[in-house]
Order: sequence, then structure tokens, then C-alpha cells
Amino acid sequence: MRIDLDRERFEGTMAEQAAIGATDDGGLDRLALTDADREVRDWFVSKLEAAGLDVRIDAMGNTFGRREGVEEERPVLVGSHLDSQPKGGIYDGPLGVLAALECLRTVEDRGIETTRPIEIVNWTNEEGSRFQPAMMGSGVWAGAENLEEVYATTDRENKSVEEELDRIGYLGETPAEPGREYDAYLELHIEQGPLLERAEAQVGTVTGVVGLSWGELVFRGEPNHTGPTPMHLRGDALVAASDTVGAIRRLPTALGERTVATVGSLSVVPDSVNVIPGEARMTWDVRDPEDSVVETARERVLAEARAAAEREGVSLSHEDRLHVSSVAFADRCIEAVAAATEACGYDARRLPSGAGHDATHLAGVCDTGMVFAVSEEGISHSPAEYTSPEDCYAAANTLANATLELAGSE
Amino acid sequence: MRIDLDRERFEGTMAEQAAIGATDDGGLDRLALTDADREVRDWFVSKLEAAGLDVRIDAMGNTFGRREGVEEERPVLVGSHLDSQPKGGIYDGPLGVLAALECLRTVEDRGIETTRPIEIVNWTNEEGSRFQPAMMGSGVWAGAENLEEVYATTDRENKSVEEELDRIGYLGETPAEPGREYDAYLELHIEQGPLLERAEAQVGTVTGVVGLSWGELVFRGEPNHTGPTPMHLRGDALVAASDTVGAIRRLPTALGERTVATVGSLSVVPDSVNVIPGEARMTWDVRDPEDSVVETARERVLAEARAAAEREGVSLSHEDRLHVSSVAFADRCIEAVAAATEACGYDARRLPSGAGHDATHLAGVCDTGMVFAVSEEGISHSPAEYTSPEDCYAAANTLANATLELAGSE
Repeated sequence: MRIDLDRERFEGTMAEQAAIGATDDGGLDRLALTDADREVRDWFVSKLEAAGLDVRIDAMGNTFGRREGVEEERPVLVGSHLDSQPKGGIYDGPLGVLAALECLRTVEDRGIETTRPIEIVNWTNEEGSRFQPAMMGSGVWAGAENLEEVYATTDRENKSVEEELDRIGYLGETPAEPGREYDAYLELHIEQGPLLERAEAQVGTVTGVVGLSWGELVFRGEPNHTGPTPMHLRGDALVAASDTVGAIRRLPTALGERTVATVGSLSVVPDSVNVIPGEARMTWDVRDPEDSVVETARERVLAEARAAAEREGVSLSHEDRLHVSSVAFADRCIEAVAAATEACGYDARRLPSGAGHDATHLAGVCDTGMVFAVSEEGISHSPAEYTSPEDCYAAANTLANATLELAGSE
Repeated sequence: MRIDLDRERFEGTMAEQAAIGATDDGGLDRLALTDADREVRDWFVSKLEAAGLDVRIDAMGNTFGRREGVEEERPVLVGSHLDSQPKGGIYDGPLGVLAALECLRTVEDRGIETTRPIEIVNWTNEEGSRFQPAMMGSGVWAGAENLEEVYATTDRENKSVEEELDRIGYLGETPAEPGREYDAYLELHIEQGPLLERAEAQVGTVTGVVGLSWGELVFRGEPNHTGPTPMHLRGDALVAASDTVGAIRRLPTALGERTVATVGSLSVVPDSVNVIPGEARMTWDVRDPEDSVVETARERVLAEARAAAEREGVSLSHEDRLHVSSVAFADRCIEAVAAATEACGYDARRLPSGAGHDATHLAGVCDTGMVFAVSEEGISHSPAEYTSPEDCYAAANTLANATLELAGSE
């Protein structure tokens, strides 16, 4: 059975959510657990209720809407997140949540009975901008994060997750855990990369999530005056850091086709035009679908940093910040998504996700898959983030048909 | 005639000044025109008066103490500055001011009559930490800066130079200009570099001040997500900046024995571990005793930056910030300093100053020379700045004898 979503209604719903926490430049400022987040949650709950779904809110504020199935008790779960970065775009997670909503509305409109229950979900604080870590709600739910530690996490104004959940009315009573077996999880998200657009594809079938290693390097030298200190008597922390930036830029050429390696953050102390940098602090971020390649990349980052520090005569220390193993999605979920793209006649491409998503945590709980929507120029976390109406619809329709396939009907 | 300063009195005076604005770690926090600056100025004026000098304060707060000569009207001026960086050391400028004071005290004690008058000076705001530009008081006095513009300059709390001079009682009535011809200017300052210590010299005869070029480079690329953006589709502003840092590190090897080139400041936007830097902003600082080498170095910085930007596919803009021509000190001042080191039996070395000093401005007014004191490990602008009592005394004695030579006696 193939269904086609009501495109006009779907686009109307997207426009409604985009107005909540809207910024002047067409973006979103809807940080987790703020008033804007409360507003979009209240709006979302009203939509779930209007669609006849059974709403429940868990102790992390994760919000579910359930439609019963006729035989099997293990539900198919489908959703994403409604929170945004401080200067985020309107597609990011909301596209996935509202595509799931439109899927359930259409199934209801057409009186389709599914074998398994279908649940829709809005995960709390996927972005991690205000409270770290990112993917917080799904992390607790999937058992990857500790509820009490997460509750005690505070933002820059020293407000805790627990008090903010309570303040906005989303400290729910259902435990933040599956509570039952789930059959599968599907998530639609924008690609946040340029591969689909470059391939002129309409939609992406996601095969898994790359693994990653994050860490910080600190080089320490001598912060002397730039004028009177001859070149051969310097230990310039920034020179060592810059050498390492260049080495990290070249790493992927020796490692793998899909390896990416980036220095996103770099700062120097004292950061003055006429003082040789005495300290340079930089991050690394290396990713690959293969965990062994991630580990090799991390080792090479450290080797390059040590070589640069020795060359410049400065000291080096490092700290690992985050290690995430790669995830291979379940074949049956990948094939359900692929079958949906074929049934709808969309030009699709298979690719791994380069970014983490709530689906990363869900893969530890049940069979998981993802659909990617085209990201124009790969831009995300920016008001300039854009997915054309056609591409939004193609991704949403793919999600709906894959969900129906997994939930079973007729 | 050779004189020897009273070492015990000199060291006592140094200790007194070091207690005004002292920090817990043995440094100084005596920013220009603060209460601590007022306190050290009041103390200094009392010392000038006690030494029988004729005190005058000009419209920039520059503070002079005059001892008359017997024949010639053109004075020899000698001094430095008492203000400090926010985390400065106790030697920097104060050593030069108090060596000048000790010189005049000794001349007075011994009843020496000099041919020319000798004036001692404390220049206002040499450091430029609170109000820019640096070398402000001497700059106005020498006609290199405009008094009204300097008066209107504000600090971060929006307080102006004029109101702060007035508040601390140092908005003097004498015009901030020479007002007469000066015969010569001598300044003792710590080297702020490691050359004298490395050469195991006791004192430095300064031959001039290097020229310099300062500017800023801004690279702009695409601030995309580090995960989903393949390496070949990136325009990483930090990679281009880092390549340029490395090229600037190597520049001096192709230019000159005394060329120095530094990137002291570098920052990226948005500066997040998982976002490719969309903007990288960095400074350049190139110096050489030859102005033509400075100009070549500046051109090569820009050429390297352009090449790096093109390689990475990012845009580049640049802004020149400061150009200072090199200064060659007057032969007769250099020789007076050299003769003083010989007369005192000090192991001296000739070298140019890599940093700007009030003497840079004075060289536009009259014959100028400088004495350098040894800086341990070349450290300055830090509480760790250190010159041994022996080296302080050697530099002070050199200054005193060179001053007496220029002022003429017997």
C-alpha cells in the first residue's frame, strides 16, 4: 500500500511551527526548555490531540503520540526534535517531527489499520546548545545518559534541566525509558551536507551514522614580545597549532574516502598583535563510518601535534572529549526506506550520516533507520538553511511509506 | 669625569616605586591615569622636589624636573615612563626614570656643574594598554600625535584621557611641546629580549629602533557542519589562516638576519568544535632595522595569504594597521653611551631595539640614544620580568655617565 501525504496541509503545518520562535532573518531561536520551546510544544500537543492520538509526556519532556495497531504490540516509533540552535533554521529537526505527524494524520484520514501501533515523538534538547550533551532526551530514554545527572545539568544562568522542564510544564510522569519493546524507529532529518544536492538526488536513504572522536590540544610556549625576540629563540604556541591544523586538513587523503577531519575551534593567549602566543588551544573532530579509521585518525592527530610541538619547542597536552562509535542501521529499516523511495519514484541515494542524531541513541534500543531531506548547499544551523518544498515533500512521503511498511497494513 | 651612582639609595628608590600598584605575584598593575598612576606620580614629584629640581607638568601630564646648566641653554633630556601593563613587571620603564633621578641626585650631591641643563622626564601612557596609542605622552610632545584627538580618546569605560588627567591632578599648564631646542635625549629601558643575556653582556648600547608593519587578515569561507561536509567541498577559513601562520614563521629566513615576523592574534567564527570555521581573523607583525625589508616582508605576507586563500577557496581581505619607520639613533648619542660603558668597564653589546619606545618619538625632536638593561630570559610585560640588581646598576651607571658626557662638565 502506498500513501501520499496532503502536501498543502503539511506545508501549512511547517509554516505554523516556523512562526514560533521565528527570527527576523527567517530562522529560528527556539532553544530547548525556553518559552519558545514551551510554545511549540503546546502547539504540537494540540496537533497530536486533534489527530486523535494518545499523548504522553515522559520525565525528560519527550512527547509521544500513539495510534494503536490491530495485532502486534511492539510499536514503530517515528519522530525527531523541535528545538533549534540559537541561530538555527526552520527545517533541521521540525521537518522530521511534522512529517511524522502528517503521516499519522493521513493514515487516520484514510482509516488505515496497521498491524503494529505507530508512535510519534518529539525528543527534548537534541541540539545541546543551552544544555549539554546534545541528543539529551533520546539519550536518557535509550539508557545512554543518566537521568539524575542530566536533571542537574545547568545552563549559563545556572538554571537546571529539571527546573526548566518543570517551569515550562513538561516534567512528565511517564518514566523516560522505553517501558516496552519497540519494533523499529525511523527519523527524517535534513542532510546538513551537500551530497544529495550534488548528486541531484531527491531524497537520501541513510545507512548509518559515522563514528567520531573529539578532543582538545593545548600548546604552551613563551609569551614574549614580538619585537626584541629573535626567531630562533622563540617557542610560538600558535605556530605549532597552525602546523597541526594543516596536518589535520591533509589527514583524510591518507585514510578513507569518507573520512573528515576538522579544527573548528582555535584560540590563543594573550591574543595580542605584539605578543608571541604563549598558549594555543584547538579542537579536533575526526569522523568515519569505520571505527578503526576514526581511531587511526585520532592517533595521527596526536602524532602530528607532538611533532609540531617538538619542532617549535613548545609543550603539548591533550584531552579526549567525546568518542562515539559508528552505527550501522538495521537492514530492514534501510530497505523499508529504499522501497518507499522506489514506490514513490524518487531519485534516491544511499549515504551515511556525518552528524549524530537522536537515531544514534535509538539504534541501541531497536532496529533503526533514517531518511535524509536535501539540504541546499549543505547549510544548516543557520537561518540560511533551506530545503525546497518539493524536497521536503519527497522526504516526508518517503518517511510515511517506510513507516507504513514497517507498521504493516492490509 | 666619571661618576658612580649610590647603589643602595638607587635600589631603595626602585623598591619604593615597586610597592605602588604592586600585585600579589610581584608584578605591577599601574595602568596610565589610574589611582595607582596618580600615587606613583605624586611620589615621583616629591622625589624631584627633594632633589632640588624645578618641576613642571605639561598638558599631557608629562612630568619634568630641571637642573640648570652653566652655559648652554639647550638641555639634555633623560627619562622613560612609570606606567605599566595590567600585568606588568617592576622594571620596564621605571628603571629608566629612576636611573635618571639617581643621576641627578648624584650630580647634585657632588656639586657638579654641567654646561647644559639636564631635565628628567616621566612620559604619560607609554604602554597603551588602557588608552591607545602607546607612547602617547611623548607622541604629543614630539608632534607625532594630535593633542585634541588624544584628549578625546576613551578607555573601555568611556572615560577620556582629558578627564582622567584632570581627575588625577596631572592636566598640567605647560604646553605639551618642547618649547625650546633640546640638545639630546637619552632613555634607559629593559631590553625586553634575550640578546644581551645570551651574549653574557652587562648592558646594551642601542643603535636605533626597528621599523614595523602591523595589519590584519580576514579569511571568509563557509561555516558548515563538520560531519556531513566532505573535505573536497569545504572552504575552511582556519586552514587558510593556518597556512599563512606557517608561511609568516618562515619569512625571516628569506629576508634578513634581524627580521622578525609574528602572528600574535588569531580567532575564528563561530569557534565551535563541530562547525567548519567560516571566518578566521589574524594579525601580522613584521619588523626589521631596514625599512625596505619591512616593506618586502609585508608584501610577502599578503602574497602568502592570497595563495592560501586561493588554495582553500576562501575570500581574503586585509587592513594595514600601523606602519612605523625605523629610527637610526644619533652617532654622538650612541658614542656617548658606548664611552660610558667603557669608562665603567662594562661588557657591552650594540643592538637595535626591536620594540618601540618614547625614544622613537624623541628621535624626531633631537639627537637621541638609548641604554638597554639585561632582561632575564627576555621576559617583559609580565610579573616574571627580571633584571638582576647588578644589571640594573650597570645600566643606570651607564645612563648617568652618558648623560654627564652629553651635558658637559669641567
